[in-house]
Amino acid sequence: MSPRTIPRVVVVGAGFGGLTAAKELAKRQVRLTVLDRKNHHTFQPLLYQVATAGLSPGEIAAPIREILRGHQSVEVLLAEVQDFDLERRLVVTPEQALPYDYLIVAAGASHAYFGHDEWEPLAPGLKTIEDALEIRRRVLLAFELAERHVAGGRGQVRLNFAVVGAGPTGVELAGTLAEIAHHALKMEFRSIDPAMTHILLLEGGPRVLAAYPEDLSRSAEEQLTKLGVEVQTNTQVTQIEAGAVWTGDTRIPAQVVLWAAGVAASPLSKKLHVPLDRAGRVVVQGDLSIPGHPEVFVIGDLASVKYDEGKLVPGLAPAAMQQGRFAAQCILGDMEGRSRTTFRYRDKGTLATIGRAAAVGQFGKLHISGYLAWLSWLFIHVMFLVGFRNRVLVMIQWAWSYLTYERGARLITGSNTLPGWVETNSAPAEPEGAATAADRK
Amino acid sequence: MSPRTIPRVVVVGAGFGGLTAAKELAKRQVRLTVLDRKNHHTFQPLLYQVATAGLSPGEIAAPIREILRGHQSVEVLLAEVQDFDLERRLVVTPEQALPYDYLIVAAGASHAYFGHDEWEPLAPGLKTIEDALEIRRRVLLAFELAERHVAGGRGQVRLNFAVVGAGPTGVELAGTLAEIAHHALKMEFRSIDPAMTHILLLEGGPRVLAAYPEDLSRSAEEQLTKLGVEVQTNTQVTQIEAGAVWTGDTRIPAQVVLWAAGVAASPLSKKLHVPLDRAGRVVVQGDLSIPGHPEVFVIGDLASVKYDEGKLVPGLAPAAMQQGRFAAQCILGDMEGRSRTTFRYRDKGTLATIGRAAAVGQFGKLHISGYLAWLSWLFIHVMFLVGFRNRVLVMIQWAWSYLTYERGARLITGSNTLPGWVETNSAPAEPEGAATAADRK
Repeated sequence: MSPRTIPRVVVVGAGFGGLTAAKELAKRQVRLTVLDRKNHHTFQPLLYQVATAGLSPGEIAAPIREILRGHQSVEVLLAEVQDFDLERRLVVTPEQALPYDYLIVAAGASHAYFGHDEWEPLAPGLKTIEDALEIRRRVLLAFELAERHVAGGRGQVRLNFAVVGAGPTGVELAGTLAEIAHHALKMEFRSIDPAMTHILLLEGGPRVLAAYPEDLSRSAEEQLTKLGVEVQTNTQVTQIEAGAVWTGDTRIPAQVVLWAAGVAASPLSKKLHVPLDRAGRVVVQGDLSIPGHPEVFVIGDLASVKYDEGKLVPGLAPAAMQQGRFAAQCILGDMEGRSRTTFRYRDKGTLATIGRAAAVGQFGKLHISGYLAWLSWLFIHVMFLVGFRNRVLVMIQWAWSYLTYERGARLITGSNTLPGWVETNSAPAEPEGAATAADRK
Repeated sequence: MSPRTIPRVVVVGAGFGGLTAAKELAKRQVRLTVLDRKNHHTFQPLLYQVATAGLSPGEIAAPIREILRGHQSVEVLLAEVQDFDLERRLVVTPEQALPYDYLIVAAGASHAYFGHDEWEPLAPGLKTIEDALEIRRRVLLAFELAERHVAGGRGQVRLNFAVVGAGPTGVELAGTLAEIAHHALKMEFRSIDPAMTHILLLEGGPRVLAAYPEDLSRSAEEQLTKLGVEVQTNTQVTQIEAGAVWTGDTRIPAQVVLWAAGVAASPLSKKLHVPLDRAGRVVVQGDLSIPGHPEVFVIGDLASVKYDEGKLVPGLAPAAMQQGRFAAQCILGDMEGRSRTTFRYRDKGTLATIGRAAAVGQFGKLHISGYLAWLSWLFIHVMFLVGFRNRVLVMIQWAWSYLTYERGARLITGSNTLPGWVETNSAPAEPEGAATAADRK
């Protein structure tokens, strides 16, 4: 390509990777189109706060076109990509075929149910704002239905919440659910005691936060236990039904089951017709392009990228952002006649939050946990949150929550039913004795 | 009833009326149960701000049990009332029959489509948080679909938003939509110009805000016009179809149609088996109780209450709150052996907001409009907003919006389709010429 022509770049997906690439390209002489199925960029590391009623959706998500509006050369379209025509260099959506000179595919990942898609309605995962609102609805509703059941004189209810998978998402969900049950709802119920809610974290592998060093896994498990979470490692979930999970022959009743056990690359990876790894990720080349197509880059959770000693680059926001910047620089380098380099992942450390004043973190050889890790986590996440206004609002919400234990967004919207919860005159789930609502006749 | 027994009071509905009654009773020697279909009290006067992406749901709604948690004698239950057994003094829900000594029915009102319930999916009204989110989704999505359509080279799109009914809700929706189109979305689209959006306010009667004095109606219409709203009075909507409204023989294409033309009392009024007025409201006695049942009160939008010269008490939050306080005082008076008085509505004035720095207000003989009315409206509504935290957050949001014209909650969640908008290779709605997306080939 001659340096004089203005290349058309299409970015598919406005997560951390796609958005970083777009911002990098937006300042330069390219015609850029950003496609996303949603109108908003979601700050995924704080999604669990929406799921647990600590923050409102508007505080962790911002319209993509608002983020990019300062750049007149950038076009943002709400569209669902169906296919790629790599030969004719077209991105195919139901509405149009969009030509490109360069393509950056950053379509991310979604939940994987390991061949059990029928579990999805029973155990929602946490990837989108809609997912978070559905989890919030179920969690808050479980307390309401239990209160109503006991108040109606139909026996006690033991509330069980099961979180499947003890990666970062499962750990933060379980920890925060414990905080809600033990603190946020205190004093608000008359017939049930929310603090009696049983929070169970089920992990198939031998330890929580398996991607972290062993000492931090141990610390995380201790912190979870202190928050009131029961952690069961080496426990495979073999079946999920409405109102219960099975681990082998054991049926564990649970009014709310949340899925944090696996992610798979977006099915869009298949449309590129190049080799994929077992998780469906595109095995990219050193410059993050795909074999035979130097003009097509795959970045973020959709890409399988190796770095030193054959380790895979982790599916984290900073990694996606580094890749987005790298792909953008490759395109700009092409325009200026520079030759491409190889992507190098810089591991700046990782932090996982567990709950109130509880977290673990690894920065090279430095391992931290507890309050210090939590403060670092807080600071970094609020600082990276998109948009000045959101940062201020989130900080106020958090300061308030921290001081009062309140959760600011405890709304149930949508249906008032839970899978497996049937209102009859018999107890719905795990009755434990007869009516005790003594002052009602 | 002897003054010594502790009466059981059931309040149905936790809107302004029910919540005020509950708070008044909570401090005294009664056993109180508050029933609501939702877990949250909604600050309805600010609902249009959620519908127009200015505020998040969590900022104008708070869990009912959080509001009342300080009172150990108060029980809050999420429940949908099906029926009343006035003889046996029972409130019937699907789960239980709740006995009462006193009953306060404050179930409010909902949209009325005047026998055209089939219009509801085509033209949503604004009564709940869910309604507001659906309106927000449609409004934001219309701009996205138009941008995508034009960017795809399939002709221009003229966006038309029609608001049916020019009462306070219709006026504030139309005014705020104009603000969004003309200011908030500026600079963000490349193929369409949101400022070209046509906002149409259709009113069957001769003037907007018919409940206000004529000079304020005139002022409101002028302010609407200045904001860019086309006001059509004396215009009956005779039919609504996907993508259009009809006024007589005229078909007006409209990608978004909003309904603000009528409310009707909750169908629960019929379950009381007492005389109703034409809008389905319960015609209560002087003490707000129903004939033959001094222990049953009906308050708020569900009640038809006359005050001086036979005028009806308006369906406003202050009126409902006064009635809630009065009903609670009747119950407490009964307990103390005082005789009942007649409810007197104190009209403290009314304010209707129109848009940015635009409003009208009436305080007795004082009529105000424009900036002063808007400031008064702002002050009063933020002050009355439930919960200290919400007030602070809302004020920050508003200060930010006022300075920047930004809308903080512009998220599209849920489906990416609009009724009547079909993506084909022909233009979807009112094509006005051929493809113009010149720089796309």
